[in-house]
Amino acid sequence: VSRRIRLGMVGGGQGAFIGGVHRIAARLDDRYELVAGAFSSDAARGRASAAELHVAPDRAYASGEELAARESARPDGAEVVAIVTPNHAHAAPAIACLRAGLHVICDKPLCHTMEAALELAGAVRESSALFALTHNYTGYPLVRQARDMVAQGVIGAVRVIQVEYPQDWLTTALEETGQKQAAWRTDPARSGAAGSVGDIGTHAFNLAEFVGGQRVGSVLAELTSFVPGRRLDDDARMLLRFEGGARGMLWCSQVAPGNENGLRLRVYGAAGGLEWAQEQPNLLVHTPFGEPPRMIRRGGAGASPVAAHATRIPSGHPEGYLEAFAQLYRDFAEQILARREGRAPDPACQLVPGIEEGLRGMRFIAAAVESSRAGSTWVVLG
Amino acid sequence: VSRRIRLGMVGGGQGAFIGGVHRIAARLDDRYELVAGAFSSDAARGRASAAELHVAPDRAYASGEELAARESARPDGAEVVAIVTPNHAHAAPAIACLRAGLHVICDKPLCHTMEAALELAGAVRESSALFALTHNYTGYPLVRQARDMVAQGVIGAVRVIQVEYPQDWLTTALEETGQKQAAWRTDPARSGAAGSVGDIGTHAFNLAEFVGGQRVGSVLAELTSFVPGRRLDDDARMLLRFEGGARGMLWCSQVAPGNENGLRLRVYGAAGGLEWAQEQPNLLVHTPFGEPPRMIRRGGAGASPVAAHATRIPSGHPEGYLEAFAQLYRDFAEQILARREGRAPDPACQLVPGIEEGLRGMRFIAAAVESSRAGSTWVVLG
Amino acid sequence: VSRRIRLGMVGGGQGAFIGGVHRIAARLDDRYELVAGAFSSDAARGRASAAELHVAPDRAYASGEELAARESARPDGAEVVAIVTPNHAHAAPAIACLRAGLHVICDKPLCHTMEAALELAGAVRESSALFALTHNYTGYPLVRQARDMVAQGVIGAVRVIQVEYPQDWLTTALEETGQKQAAWRTDPARSGAAGSVGDIGTHAFNLAEFVGGQRVGSVLAELTSFVPGRRLDDDARMLLRFEGGARGMLWCSQVAPGNENGLRLRVYGAAGGLEWAQEQPNLLVHTPFGEPPRMIRRGGAGASPVAAHATRIPSGHPEGYLEAFAQLYRDFAEQILARREGRAPDPACQLVPGIEEGLRGMRFIAAAVESSRAGSTWVVLG
Amino acid sequence: VSRRIRLGMVGGGQGAFIGGVHRIAARLDDRYELVAGAFSSDAARGRASAAELHVAPDRAYASGEELAARESARPDGAEVVAIVTPNHAHAAPAIACLRAGLHVICDKPLCHTMEAALELAGAVRESSALFALTHNYTGYPLVRQARDMVAQGVIGAVRVIQVEYPQDWLTTALEETGQKQAAWRTDPARSGAAGSVGDIGTHAFNLAEFVGGQRVGSVLAELTSFVPGRRLDDDARMLLRFEGGARGMLWCSQVAPGNENGLRLRVYGAAGGLEWAQEQPNLLVHTPFGEPPRMIRRGGAGASPVAAHATRIPSGHPEGYLEAFAQLYRDFAEQILARREGRAPDPACQLVPGIEEGLRGMRFIAAAVESSRAGSTWVVLG
Repeated sequence: VSRRIRLGMVGGGQGAFIGGVHRIAARLDDRYELVAGAFSSDAARGRASAAELHVAPDRAYASGEELAARESARPDGAEVVAIVTPNHAHAAPAIACLRAGLHVICDKPLCHTMEAALELAGAVRESSALFALTHNYTGYPLVRQARDMVAQGVIGAVRVIQVEYPQDWLTTALEETGQKQAAWRTDPARSGAAGSVGDIGTHAFNLAEFVGGQRVGSVLAELTSFVPGRRLDDDARMLLRFEGGARGMLWCSQVAPGNENGLRLRVYGAAGGLEWAQEQPNLLVHTPFGEPPRMIRRGGAGASPVAAHATRIPSGHPEGYLEAFAQLYRDFAEQILARREGRAPDPACQLVPGIEEGLRGMRFIAAAVESSRAGSTWVVLG
Repeated sequence: VSRRIRLGMVGGGQGAFIGGVHRIAARLDDRYELVAGAFSSDAARGRASAAELHVAPDRAYASGEELAARESARPDGAEVVAIVTPNHAHAAPAIACLRAGLHVICDKPLCHTMEAALELAGAVRESSALFALTHNYTGYPLVRQARDMVAQGVIGAVRVIQVEYPQDWLTTALEETGQKQAAWRTDPARSGAAGSVGDIGTHAFNLAEFVGGQRVGSVLAELTSFVPGRRLDDDARMLLRFEGGARGMLWCSQVAPGNENGLRLRVYGAAGGLEWAQEQPNLLVHTPFGEPPRMIRRGGAGASPVAAHATRIPSGHPEGYLEAFAQLYRDFAEQILARREGRAPDPACQLVPGIEEGLRGMRFIAAAVESSRAGSTWVVLG
Repeated sequence: VSRRIRLGMVGGGQGAFIGGVHRIAARLDDRYELVAGAFSSDAARGRASAAELHVAPDRAYASGEELAARESARPDGAEVVAIVTPNHAHAAPAIACLRAGLHVICDKPLCHTMEAALELAGAVRESSALFALTHNYTGYPLVRQARDMVAQGVIGAVRVIQVEYPQDWLTTALEETGQKQAAWRTDPARSGAAGSVGDIGTHAFNLAEFVGGQRVGSVLAELTSFVPGRRLDDDARMLLRFEGGARGMLWCSQVAPGNENGLRLRVYGAAGGLEWAQEQPNLLVHTPFGEPPRMIRRGGAGASPVAAHATRIPSGHPEGYLEAFAQLYRDFAEQILARREGRAPDPACQLVPGIEEGLRGMRFIAAAVESSRAGSTWVVLG
Repeated sequence: VSRRIRLGMVGGGQGAFIGGVHRIAARLDDRYELVAGAFSSDAARGRASAAELHVAPDRAYASGEELAARESARPDGAEVVAIVTPNHAHAAPAIACLRAGLHVICDKPLCHTMEAALELAGAVRESSALFALTHNYTGYPLVRQARDMVAQGVIGAVRVIQVEYPQDWLTTALEETGQKQAAWRTDPARSGAAGSVGDIGTHAFNLAEFVGGQRVGSVLAELTSFVPGRRLDDDARMLLRFEGGARGMLWCSQVAPGNENGLRLRVYGAAGGLEWAQEQPNLLVHTPFGEPPRMIRRGGAGASPVAAHATRIPSGHPEGYLEAFAQLYRDFAEQILARREGRAPDPACQLVPGIEEGLRGMRFIAAAVESSRAGSTWVVLG
């Protein structure tokens, strides 16, 4: 009987959002079992969460650092730890885990400051453990297929990359109502120098690079806070120059009424285009120049092996956000098992974002903030 | 620490489709753990499947009957058993489980013959155990909301119910290639008297009654086998008369190229309409007469508590087929726990289809086949 | 300088709907000039309409018969007459025009009774003049392309033809409010034996035959009047058997809230499918079996010469209902000119429906009404 | 009998595109008759065009200047002249017409240089004749409704305006094949300093201001020529600052494969949003914050009197590009008639763009070019 990978978690107690997503993602393909957690900085809430989550009381810890220390000392201890706290609380527990030899799955953006990010990157470099960053939209099968099609030259030399990520949930001053998610995301102390840019702009940026196959060389941005009293940007508009010659735009917003989670990517090359939208993730539109557009559907005709690797059920049976998120967990499981067994992992499982993507996201945030402060000048990404 | 419900499974070994779906559905909300299985009539395949599925070798059984006998005798035995075999192999293991006091989750259609169905219904009646039938499309949050809106009178007296379920995977004689799913579905011995009508027509029928709030009184049908040599219908077209006065049509097809899993329902009343399509399950279009159509989105504005009960993540983060399927497992878990604890279950968890829906599906199949054989006459459902 | 064809009109005075559409259709491609009219049975209204329409007062007539007599006697008289009255008033003026040697463009359905239809057909047979029936949806370029693709065998042998035409404007008893369009359409004396079946079901029927390339052999129908007090059907559901072996369904409704003019056709063959919807007329979805669906757009890649013949402006610049209607006028103009010049018309202009399509529509109405009255039996079209 | 307004045309001979559109637009609502033209700089082609267009041979002129002189001298001469030549040939004939007292309908952009534009503006100022500029997308009924809803405060204070206009027809070097439309549009001598920005960017800019209700204060742009050898931009990306505090982006491209005529506008305010796309022009999506999105359809429930003014046929019967274009002609006809009759025109007909919109478009082009040349700096519109 094969055994599941033992998982710990930092954050994600009662009232949290993304922690629950990570747990479903870990469970969905049955590669993990949750064995330990530092679910909350509030001890009672942490214990209550543990009980709900089938975690033994003695493995509910007060902090990520304690979890790292205690679990790494157990023969049946957690092998990998998911960090699902607000941004400012990523680095410390992640570093503690890495130093204790535990693999880490960290939510994005990497950290709230560049300093913390660099320190964390150092810890990754020095550790023998693996590090994954949950830019979960890269787990969608048709996103991966789009990336592959671009790399194969199907649309020719890439010219234009348009990416946008509008939402509407911060259209009003939700943070003033005590709503927990809004509160920390609009607080510079916990979120960092950027609001919408860090929260969702980084996803859009990551997706553009992941699919487009070119790194962003420089950014020109204007960040705006439309809601009175808000301390961080809730809308940002940017021009992008890619290193391979492509040009593009990025828009992220949390004040665009009617948009729920409207991440959308369009890539145009000399020979065709590709269009994908997160809210219709089972469809990739391929527009070869001079031919009728083709609707490639997950699991259907035209879906490639790259997409098939990241799909579970037949076409027409929609997979969604949770399945895409789970794909990162599933692929990372293969990396962990390969490491454990001293073999090379399945190459199909190597697309999980890691510390490099994390650092690029931080540089993107820094460049966007700097550009906007300078009145919208081109800023080179470090 | 709460504990998970112990689950056994009959069928679903390597190469099967729906068994894997049931397992993901059981895992997704963390209410079950798979502890036993009779995964295959082929013993070696059954053991191999068990090993892959983290099931102990001594709990991999040769048959559902053996599973029922042995697991019901263990103090830590399975409490509920999922039956995921082809239609002709539903009744026997289900009856064995029920008689052993084990709850049953059975795939649809209920059985391959009416006789078997009635025998199974008798076993359910005589058992203290619970019985669920996985008409999984009723697990979609916006399907439930649609049902609720109809029941609340939001669209007025229902006049017209249009339901369709086109697929294309049997456009050619796939069953002659050895494809396992096609083989049993087109074989009267294993599938029953109907092909597409049993496989997908029953889903469409169930959805129409579930949402429409009226029972179908009589059916007029024409069943056709378009692919040469095929022994069961691969396309059927029907008129429906509902007991509450509504009229409608039902189309199911497995030979409609371009359609993957196109279940779609439209209900029109004197004051408005509702439209839902399985391939865009996060959207329910409400068309109040004389007002602009409203797009109700899962988790968004306009989504009701009924929908919220069946949703996990915010709007714009698409949920899909697996989450809807999991909803039946989650709600059934509450029913099992309530039974165990001697209390009434949460009313929100009472929508899981059961033996009545299974019998209605069998009567629908029988009536459709009879009508078609008689040259398309109205046949009253028993 | 070429000259325009001189057009007369019967019906279409102030307050009418379809007359205005015919006039725009006649003008759009500049092949006609309106020179005479019997716009209304109310003389004052007829004169006022003439003045608005740039028609000389002495060419505003009291009846179609008078128009036929007087215009055919003038050297500069109308050459063709459009009949745009309610159904019961088609035959008499059309016959008068044909006997006077004037070409006729008649709105659909052909007549209100089979007797009138047969008499009109006789007049067409005996006349040297041409006769067109405005089943205007056949004027859409992508409808014609769909027909051509079916005829070319692109989708293989046709198996299933699904057509529907839901509207919602008669959801309530609009005819009781004095609304003119509703009043005559729900009045058996003016509309004939059918309501929605005659008004829109005939369009759906015509489209299915036009594109599907097979004649309907028999019909099984249920016609219903949902609105209390309504004397004609406002919703009808039918099964169709085509002479070439295809099977299908037809639904027409004027009580389906949210549907404006939802004519939609889907044709499936052994090798692929075609889908077209009138409200998105610039798109034809072609679904070759085993390949990604292709979106063929009017004027774009994949649009054929057949479509190009019926299009005026580049793709992406939407054409609509009026342009499709105008296409019949444009093609009929070529037929008239060719007749005048004693030459064969451009074959591309030969798709205009005529008396045969009119008679088939009448037989369809009769068969549907007969089937429904008999409790939904198969009725062969005459 | 009312009479039609007499129309002359400069440009629009055989092989041209937009001239034919203007003629259909003029005919569609029957307010004009074409009586004269300088259809081509090639005399033979001009005469041949006149013959095809039912224009008398003696009213086919060699130039716009000649047309202005001769027609203004006739008692039955043209009252209004449409200028449909390439950009560089707008100003001279327009000025000649205006000085001769003829009203002018001019295609966009206003001119190829700012100097010409200012000279033309001077002529408009000094003339008693009227001047219209065919920013035809403002003729769509739901565009006008969107403008009205913004002005009424329905979506609250406007924050974000996103506009884009992708096409794909210049993805390859079409201008090198001799294609006439491509040739002049990519030639600085005939098009002006901008390519895609002048051809379609001006439409996007105009639409943003028209609906958004705020003037663009400054522009930051990057213009790119992706096709080797092309002398003018074929793709441009811009940030916009509006004078009322809104922020936005503008993208125009003629090298985005799969996009035909993808003009699309989204406006978000503190209380809701509006979304409209030219290729689905009969739909306006209104997204009140905190409520389900509403689909407002031309002619349907929710369509306002402003939209009704610009619509001809019932909802569900699609109107398109030609009807929107015709709306400008129809409204301008009322302005001409009112001027002739010495009365105030119907206020509903006052939305036709004129010289001010033309000048703003020219300033927009100039600012975008200047910004891009300076490395993407903010440039204030004059």
